[in-house]
Amino acid sequence: MKIWQKNIEVNKDIESFTVGKDRELDLQMAAFDVLGSLAHVEMLESIGLLTAAELAEIQRELKNIYAEIEAGEFKIEDTVEDVHSQVEWLLTQRIGEAGKKIHSGRSRNDQVLVDLKLFFRDRIEEMVSNSAVLFQQLITLSNTHKDKLLPGYTHLQIAMPSSFGLWFGAYAESLVDDMEMMLAAWKICNKNPLGSAAGYGSSFPLNRTMTTNLLGFENLNYNVVYAQMGRGKTERVLAQAMSSVAATLAKMAMDVCLFINQNFGFIKFPDELTTGSSIMPHKKNPDVFELIRSRCNKIQALPNEIAMMTTNLPSGYHRDLQLLKENLFPSIVSLNECLEMTTYMLQHISLKDDILADKKYAYLFSVEVVNDLALKGIPFREAYQIVGETIENGTFVPGVKVNHTHEGSIGNLCNPEIEAMMETILDQFNFEKTKSAIQSLLA
Amino acid sequence: MKIWQKNIEVNKDIESFTVGKDRELDLQMAAFDVLGSLAHVEMLESIGLLTAAELAEIQRELKNIYAEIEAGEFKIEDTVEDVHSQVEWLLTQRIGEAGKKIHSGRSRNDQVLVDLKLFFRDRIEEMVSNSAVLFQQLITLSNTHKDKLLPGYTHLQIAMPSSFGLWFGAYAESLVDDMEMMLAAWKICNKNPLGSAAGYGSSFPLNRTMTTNLLGFENLNYNVVYAQMGRGKTERVLAQAMSSVAATLAKMAMDVCLFINQNFGFIKFPDELTTGSSIMPHKKNPDVFELIRSRCNKIQALPNEIAMMTTNLPSGYHRDLQLLKENLFPSIVSLNECLEMTTYMLQHISLKDDILADKKYAYLFSVEVVNDLALKGIPFREAYQIVGETIENGTFVPGVKVNHTHEGSIGNLCNPEIEAMMETILDQFNFEKTKSAIQSLLA
Amino acid sequence: MKIWQKNIEVNKDIESFTVGKDRELDLQMAAFDVLGSLAHVEMLESIGLLTAAELAEIQRELKNIYAEIEAGEFKIEDTVEDVHSQVEWLLTQRIGEAGKKIHSGRSRNDQVLVDLKLFFRDRIEEMVSNSAVLFQQLITLSNTHKDKLLPGYTHLQIAMPSSFGLWFGAYAESLVDDMEMMLAAWKICNKNPLGSAAGYGSSFPLNRTMTTNLLGFENLNYNVVYAQMGRGKTERVLAQAMSSVAATLAKMAMDVCLFINQNFGFIKFPDELTTGSSIMPHKKNPDVFELIRSRCNKIQALPNEIAMMTTNLPSGYHRDLQLLKENLFPSIVSLNECLEMTTYMLQHISLKDDILADKKYAYLFSVEVVNDLALKGIPFREAYQIVGETIENGTFVPGVKVNHTHEGSIGNLCNPEIEAMMETILDQFNFEKTKSAIQSLLA
Amino acid sequence: MKIWQKNIEVNKDIESFTVGKDRELDLQMAAFDVLGSLAHVEMLESIGLLTAAELAEIQRELKNIYAEIEAGEFKIEDTVEDVHSQVEWLLTQRIGEAGKKIHSGRSRNDQVLVDLKLFFRDRIEEMVSNSAVLFQQLITLSNTHKDKLLPGYTHLQIAMPSSFGLWFGAYAESLVDDMEMMLAAWKICNKNPLGSAAGYGSSFPLNRTMTTNLLGFENLNYNVVYAQMGRGKTERVLAQAMSSVAATLAKMAMDVCLFINQNFGFIKFPDELTTGSSIMPHKKNPDVFELIRSRCNKIQALPNEIAMMTTNLPSGYHRDLQLLKENLFPSIVSLNECLEMTTYMLQHISLKDDILADKKYAYLFSVEVVNDLALKGIPFREAYQIVGETIENGTFVPGVKVNHTHEGSIGNLCNPEIEAMMETILDQFNFEKTKSAIQSLLA
Repeated sequence: MKIWQKNIEVNKDIESFTVGKDRELDLQMAAFDVLGSLAHVEMLESIGLLTAAELAEIQRELKNIYAEIEAGEFKIEDTVEDVHSQVEWLLTQRIGEAGKKIHSGRSRNDQVLVDLKLFFRDRIEEMVSNSAVLFQQLITLSNTHKDKLLPGYTHLQIAMPSSFGLWFGAYAESLVDDMEMMLAAWKICNKNPLGSAAGYGSSFPLNRTMTTNLLGFENLNYNVVYAQMGRGKTERVLAQAMSSVAATLAKMAMDVCLFINQNFGFIKFPDELTTGSSIMPHKKNPDVFELIRSRCNKIQALPNEIAMMTTNLPSGYHRDLQLLKENLFPSIVSLNECLEMTTYMLQHISLKDDILADKKYAYLFSVEVVNDLALKGIPFREAYQIVGETIENGTFVPGVKVNHTHEGSIGNLCNPEIEAMMETILDQFNFEKTKSAIQSLLA
Repeated sequence: MKIWQKNIEVNKDIESFTVGKDRELDLQMAAFDVLGSLAHVEMLESIGLLTAAELAEIQRELKNIYAEIEAGEFKIEDTVEDVHSQVEWLLTQRIGEAGKKIHSGRSRNDQVLVDLKLFFRDRIEEMVSNSAVLFQQLITLSNTHKDKLLPGYTHLQIAMPSSFGLWFGAYAESLVDDMEMMLAAWKICNKNPLGSAAGYGSSFPLNRTMTTNLLGFENLNYNVVYAQMGRGKTERVLAQAMSSVAATLAKMAMDVCLFINQNFGFIKFPDELTTGSSIMPHKKNPDVFELIRSRCNKIQALPNEIAMMTTNLPSGYHRDLQLLKENLFPSIVSLNECLEMTTYMLQHISLKDDILADKKYAYLFSVEVVNDLALKGIPFREAYQIVGETIENGTFVPGVKVNHTHEGSIGNLCNPEIEAMMETILDQFNFEKTKSAIQSLLA
Repeated sequence: MKIWQKNIEVNKDIESFTVGKDRELDLQMAAFDVLGSLAHVEMLESIGLLTAAELAEIQRELKNIYAEIEAGEFKIEDTVEDVHSQVEWLLTQRIGEAGKKIHSGRSRNDQVLVDLKLFFRDRIEEMVSNSAVLFQQLITLSNTHKDKLLPGYTHLQIAMPSSFGLWFGAYAESLVDDMEMMLAAWKICNKNPLGSAAGYGSSFPLNRTMTTNLLGFENLNYNVVYAQMGRGKTERVLAQAMSSVAATLAKMAMDVCLFINQNFGFIKFPDELTTGSSIMPHKKNPDVFELIRSRCNKIQALPNEIAMMTTNLPSGYHRDLQLLKENLFPSIVSLNECLEMTTYMLQHISLKDDILADKKYAYLFSVEVVNDLALKGIPFREAYQIVGETIENGTFVPGVKVNHTHEGSIGNLCNPEIEAMMETILDQFNFEKTKSAIQSLLA
Repeated sequence: MKIWQKNIEVNKDIESFTVGKDRELDLQMAAFDVLGSLAHVEMLESIGLLTAAELAEIQRELKNIYAEIEAGEFKIEDTVEDVHSQVEWLLTQRIGEAGKKIHSGRSRNDQVLVDLKLFFRDRIEEMVSNSAVLFQQLITLSNTHKDKLLPGYTHLQIAMPSSFGLWFGAYAESLVDDMEMMLAAWKICNKNPLGSAAGYGSSFPLNRTMTTNLLGFENLNYNVVYAQMGRGKTERVLAQAMSSVAATLAKMAMDVCLFINQNFGFIKFPDELTTGSSIMPHKKNPDVFELIRSRCNKIQALPNEIAMMTTNLPSGYHRDLQLLKENLFPSIVSLNECLEMTTYMLQHISLKDDILADKKYAYLFSVEVVNDLALKGIPFREAYQIVGETIENGTFVPGVKVNHTHEGSIGNLCNPEIEAMMETILDQFNFEKTKSAIQSLLA
C-alpha cells in the first residue's frame, strides 16, 4: 500500500510501470537511507519534534534495521514502493506511532537526495581505493621493467624507442589526473541536501547544520532549490569522473589487445587467463581486456545518457530522475570490477625480451642519430635532411643505445614524483572524517 | 612548403584535406606558441644548445612576433601548414640560421600540446571570470527579491511556495559546483607536456623543470608517453567542465522560457531584448534564452563527441586528434558569450508582483497547514490525511504567510555562505602565478 | 564445462567476468537459436554432412527443446556458458553423438549473428504492431476532437489557433515517418548471416541460399566478412529506428506534462492514472508520462552508446560486441511498454472545453485578421503593420471563427491521407512471409 | 532592418547573438529558397492572391536571382537577417510592391522547412552518388584481388584465411545497407512542409498539393503541426543515415591504419599520398585515413548532438532549432569529401603479395584441417580436439590451399549479387522525378 494512496485503487499496470526497478536498485541504498534517518531523528529531537524517549526507541530500532541490512536480511516487499517506505513501515511495525514521526520535516525527494550522496561517497571511496591499488601495480611494473625497450608508435607507424617502463608509467600517471576528476565529484557529492524537503524547504525549524555534521558532510547544499537541482547533476558529474577512469582503462585494454596480437607479440598472459575458440584450436584470446574495453566504453557513454535524460527539464523535481539509477548503479559495480580485473591481469603479464632486436625496428633510432648530429653542431633541420637521405638510399645505420635522461623519459621515469602527485590528491579525500561521523552515528 | 616534404610533390587535394581548418584555428593559439618557444629557447641555451647571443636574438624576434600577434597583424600563409611552422619560418626569415635551431629537442606534437595547455589556461580564466560575474548578478538578484514569492513546482505540478530569492540563488549555487569541475580541468591543464617530443621523449638533455617554471605550470606531465596521452583527454576534461556550466545556463534558460510564457507570466524583459514574428505582431519571443539553451545543449554534447573521436585509439599520437579543435575552440567562445549574455539579460529582468494572489496557487500552502498540525503534536501521517480530506471535499483553507527559517529556505537564503563557498574555490585557481610567469617571459 | 576448454582450469573470476549477463540475456534468444539450428541441420543433411536419420532425430529433439522454451521450462545452467552451448549440450544428452554434429560448418559467431537477426525481426514486428495500435488511437482522437481548439505556441509564446485534432494527428503522422526508419532497420535485419562462420566463411560446401529460404530471410549477407561486420551495425541501426519512435513518444509526453500543468490545464487523466505526493495532498502527478519521457530519452541515448562501444574497432569479431545486448534488449521491452502505456493513457484522456474563451488567448487571432486584410487586397506587410499597431495601442479586436481549409490544417486534417501513408509503409514489412517460413520450419 | 522590427531599436549585441552564423550558412540554402518561392507564387496566383501579371514579373526576377546564386554573385547583406529576407528584399527593390506579396500565406518557419528539405534532397543525391562511385571502386578491387589471401583476425588474433577480395567486398556490401538508411532519410525528406506557416497552418485557401507537385515532392507533410515537428527530426534522421556511411568509412580507415602499420605491412600507398614527420625521417604516415576516421567519428557523434539539442522541447517552433545547421551543414560537405578521398586513395593502393607465406600465419589453416577431418566422418568436436592436440605438441601441419566455395566466401564472392542489391536500392531514389520538377520550375 503506497503512502500517497488516497482511497483510490491505483491501476496495477501503472504501478508496475512506475515502480520499475526501484525495489531492486534501492536495496543498494538501504544502509544509507537508515543513516540519513538516524541523523534526521537526532535533529528532530533537538528541535522538539521528538521526545528523548521516542528518539532513543527509534535509534535503537534503526540500528537493528541497519544490522539486518548489513547481514543481507533486509528486503523491499512487493507491496512497498521503495526503500524509504520499507524502512518507515518496518519501524512503525516494531515501535508503533513513533515510527511515523520520522518523516516529519522531509520529503522522499530529500531522502533520496541524501541517500544518493551517502551512497556515492561510499562508492567513490571504493573506486578511489581500487584505482590506488592499480596505480601501485602499474608503478611497480614500470620500475621493474624500466630497461625493457618497446617500439613507440605515432600514427601507428614505428616511430621512436619507448619502453615498458614508460608504457606502464603512463597509465599510472593517467590515473593521477583521473583522480582530480574524482575529487571534484567527491567534493560535489560531499554536501548535505537533507532539509530541502520537496525542493522548496520546510516550515519546520530544521537544523540542517546539525545533520550536516552528523553525517560528516563537508558542507551544505544551502539553497533548497539548488539541493533538488543537484539530482541529475551529481549523477552526471560522477559519471564524468568515472568516464575519465574508464577512458584510461579502455585505452590500456586497446594497447593490450594490440600488443598481444601475433603481429606485435610484445606481451603474453597465462593460458588460464585467456580464452579459446569453438572452432580455432590455436587461439588465446584476450577476452578479459576486450570486455574491459567494452565495459569502459559503455561507461564513457554514460554521462551523455544522463545529460540526455535531464536536459531541458525545468527546475523542480521530475519523476524522470528516478531512472538515472538504472545504468549508473551497475556502472559503478562494473568500473570497480574493471579496476580489480586490470590489476589482477597485470599481476600475470609476461613481457617479451629484446623486442627491438628485430630489424624492422631499426628506423626507431633515426631521431637519435639526427639529434647526435645536432648535438655536434649541425642545425637540426639539416641533420634531419642528412639522415633522411641515408634512409632513402639505404645507408642508414641505427644506433643501439638509448640515452634519454630528461624528466619523464626512458632513463629517468620520475615515478617517485608521479607517486607524490597521487599522494597529494588522495590526501584531499577526507575519507576518515566521513567514516568517523558514520561510526558515531551508529555507535 | 612543408617541413617534412622530401622532394616529392604532395598532391594538392591531399594537402587541403589534411590541413583542414588548421590555419584558421591555429591563429587562436599563435600567442601561446610563441610563449612556448620563448621558454624552450631559454632552456636550450641553459643546456648549451644555443649560444647566449643566439638566445638573445631569438628572444628579441619572438617578442616582436608576439607583439604582432597581439596587434592582429600575424597570419598563417597559405603555403605554410600550421602556426608552428609559420612562427619558425618568420623567425628564420628575420634572423637566419639561428631560427632553425628552435625546433631542437621538440616535435610538433609537444609544441601543440603545450600551446593547447597554455591556451586552455587562458580561456579557463576567462570562463571562470565570466562565471563569477554572473554569480554576483544572481546573488544580487536573489538578495533584492528575497521576499517575492513564486509557486514551486514538482512534476511541473503546483507544489509549494518558492521565491525569486530561492530561484536566483539556486543558479548561483549551481555555478559554485560547476567551478569545482572547472578547477579539476584547470589542474589537469596546468601541467607541462613540453619536452615529451613526439611522445617518447628526446635524447637531448632537456631541462623540463626549467620550462615548467618559466611557463608558470604547477607541475609536469612527467611520463612522456602520458604527456602525449593527455591530448584528447585534456580536451574531454575541459569539455566536461564546460558542459557543467552549460547545463546550469541551459536549465535557467528553460525556466526563463517557461516563466515568460503567458500561461505562467512570472517575468518579463524589455521589448528591445526580445524579438518578434514575421506574421504574428503580438509576439515578444525570448530568442536570446532559446539560443542560450540551444548553444549550451550543444556544448553538453561536446564531451561525447570528443570521446567518440578518441576512444579505442591505441596510445601514441594519431592525426585524428587534430580535429578536436574544430568544435572545442568555438564552444569556448560560445560559452563565454552565453555567460555574458545571461548576465546582461538578467540585468534587465522584471518580475511580476503578487503572483501567489491568483487563486490557482492556493494549494501551495497545503504542506504548511499539514506541518502546523504536526507542530501541534498530530503525527505527520495523520495530519497529511486530515488536510488531504479538506482538499478532497473543498473545505481547505490555505495559510498566507510563509515562515521558512532553516538554512537555505525562503526566509534564510544563506547567500553569504554560498558566496564564501565560491570564494574558496576561486582562490584555488592560481591565476596570478601563471600570469606573472608569462609576464616575466615577455619582459 | 566450456567447449573451448583445453584441460586447463580457467580462473573462476575470469569466467564470471567474461560470461557477464549472457546467461540471462541469452534466454531471450533461445527460441531463435533453435530455429537457426533447425535450418542449419536441414542444410547440413542436404550437403551430406548429416544422414537423413540423424537429421530426423535432431529435428525431433530441437522441436522438443523449442516447445520447452515456449513453455518457459528452458534454462541456461551455471556450468554452461551461453545459449548455443546449452542447446547443443541438451541435444547431445538426449540423442548422443549426432547432437555434436550440429556445430559443423558454423561458429558461435554466426550462430549469434543469426539468432540476433531472428530475434530483432520478431521484436520489430512487435514494435511496429504496437506503433500501429497507438497510431490508430491517435487518429481516432484526432477525428473525435477535430473541432476542439487549443492555443498554438511558437517560442512557447501564444501564437496562433491550433486544435486537438491537429495535436493528436501530428503525433500520428510522426509515427508514419518513424516507421520508415523501422522499415530500414527491418530490411537490414532481414538478411541471412548464417554460414559466415567466424567471419571468414567455411571450407564446408554450405548452401547458404537454402538456409536463407528456410528462415524466411529476404536475402543473404553475402560477403562473410561483411556478415560479421553486421554485428554492432545491425544493433546501431535498430537502436536508431527505436530512437525515432522514442523521440515521438518523449515529445508527446513533454506536451502532456505541460498541458496537465495547472497553468495550462488543457487535459486531465483520471485519479487512478496519476500519482500523489508523500507531503502534498493536492497533487495529481503525471508520473506515467514523466517516466515515458525519461525511458524514451534513455533510448535516444542508446545509438550513441552502441557507436561508442564499436567505433574504431578494426574488422573481425571482438568480444566487445557481446555487451551490446545489455542495454539494447531491455530497451526493446521498454519501448514496447511505452507504446502500450501511451495508448492506454490516451484512452483515458479528458480534454478541457472552450480553452480559447480565456481572454489571454485573444491575440491568437491576430494573424487571421492580418490575413483577412490581405485577402481584401492590402499587401501582407502593410496588413501586418496595421494589426501590429492596433495591438500596440490596445484597439485590437480578435476574430473568433477559425477558417482554415487547406490540406493538413484545422478544418481539413487529412487523416485519411495520413492513414494511407501508414498503410503503404506497413505493407512493406513482409511479416507474413517470415512467419510462414518459421512455421514450416517448426511443422 | 529586420522585418519584425517595430520602431524599437534592437540592441546590437542581441542581434549579433541571435543571427549567429545564419548569414553564412543560409547561403547554402539560397537556391532552394528561390525554388520554394517559385512554387509558392505559382500557387498564390492559382488561388487569386497574385495576378497573372504579378506572377510573371515575380517569376522572371526570381529566376534572375537564381541565376545570380548559381553564378556565386548572391550574398546576404549585413543589414539583412537571413536568406528569406534577402531574397524578398532584392525582389522588392527590383519590382516594387509585388515583391512584398510573396510572403502571403507562409511564415519564415515553413520557408526554412521547405528550403531544408530541398537542400537535403540535393545533398542526399550527392552523398548517394559518391557512395555509388566508392562502391564500384571497392567491387572492382574485390574482383581484381580475389585470389590474394590475407590473415583473418578475430579478437585481433590470427584466426582463419581471408582475402583482399573479401576485405574490399565487405566494405562494398556495407555501403549497400548504409543506402537503406539513406533511402529512409530520403523518403522522410521528400515530403512537402510548405503551407504549414508558423506550424499551425493558414487562413488562406492554400493549395499545398499544387506546391508539392511543383517541387517534385513525393508527398505532403500533411498535418501542419507535424510539418513543424519535422524540424530537428529530419536533421536527426539524415544525420543517422550519414553516421551509417561514416561508420563504414571509419572502420575501413581503421583497418587501413592497421594494415599499413609495419607489423602488419599488408598494404601501401605512394609516398605522395602519405605524409612525413618533422623529426622522424623514415615515416610514411597514413594521415588521410586518420583524418577520414576522425571526421567520420565526428559525424557519428552528430545524431546525438541533434537529439541533445531537441529533446524535451515541447511541440511548436523554438529558436533552438536554428543552430542545428551549424554542425550538420559542414558535416555533409565533410562526408562527401571523405567518400571522394577514400575512392581516390583506393585507386592508388598497393597490396603485398604472398602474405600468408610468413610462418606466423600457419595456424590460420587449423580450421581447414579440422573440417577436412570432419568431412571424413569424424564428429566435429573430436576433430577439433585432435587438431588442438597437434598444435599443443607442435606437430600441426597446415594445409596451404583454401577451398571455400559457398556463397560469399573466398572462392565465391557473389559480387554480382551484391551489385544487384545496390542497384535495387539506388533505383528507389527517384532523383529523376525531383530533378525534372525543379527543371520545369526554372524553365
